[in-house]
Amino acid sequence: MVGLDFEKTAGLIPAIAQEHGTGEVLMLAYMNEESWNLTLETGIVHYWSRSRNTIWKKGESSGNVQEVKEIRVDCDNDCVLLEVHQVGGAACHTGHKSCFYRVVRNGEKK
Amino acid sequence: MVGLDFEKTAGLIPAIAQEHGTGEVLMLAYMNEESWNLTLETGIVHYWSRSRNTIWKKGESSGNVQEVKEIRVDCDNDCVLLEVHQVGGAACHTGHKSCFYRVVRNGEKK
Repeated sequence: MVGLDFEKTAGLIPAIAQEHGTGEVLMLAYMNEESWNLTLETGIVHYWSRSRNTIWKKGESSGNVQEVKEIRVDCDNDCVLLEVHQVGGAACHTGHKSCFYRVVRNGEKK
Repeated sequence: MVGLDFEKTAGLIPAIAQEHGTGEVLMLAYMNEESWNLTLETGIVHYWSRSRNTIWKKGESSGNVQEVKEIRVDCDNDCVLLEVHQVGGAACHTGHKSCFYRVVRNGEKK
């Protein structure tokens, strides 16, 4: 039993998805205990959608799921790092590979 | 003005620190607007300590600060990715380079 600390953050912990092989950070989303367990059981990443208030199997409709390659837990048990294979190549709903496609320069997003 | 959405998450947004050069994810912590502004102004990473309820200039006492190399903002403006040079080499309070030093295998942390 991995024993993540879901209590500290009102039931949700941040989960960072990082591309297997390159180390590029693709996105950050949240997991509740049910989505965490589903991720462990299926090997496919499940988050919790804060906007829809439901389990969110990423790529469920598009088929662009995230396959788990490795999972790491931080020192405080309140954050996880998912090394994934992103089916379809793009993690972001905008079509970009990564949600972090904007760089801050001189106080502006570019 | 970068315009992060601090309102969505009760004033705090998650900030991922990633090692410049290697892409290794070092840690995740939180920023409020003041720590975000201090980070932009100084080029040294400032978080918000949820346990001490104060601004947390990482490495303030040890000298092992995080120097900003690049900052990225996600598509929803509610998470930031910091590419940093970690002075002293270790980001984790345990002495490990990364807080994510444990891998989950067969449902257990190793």
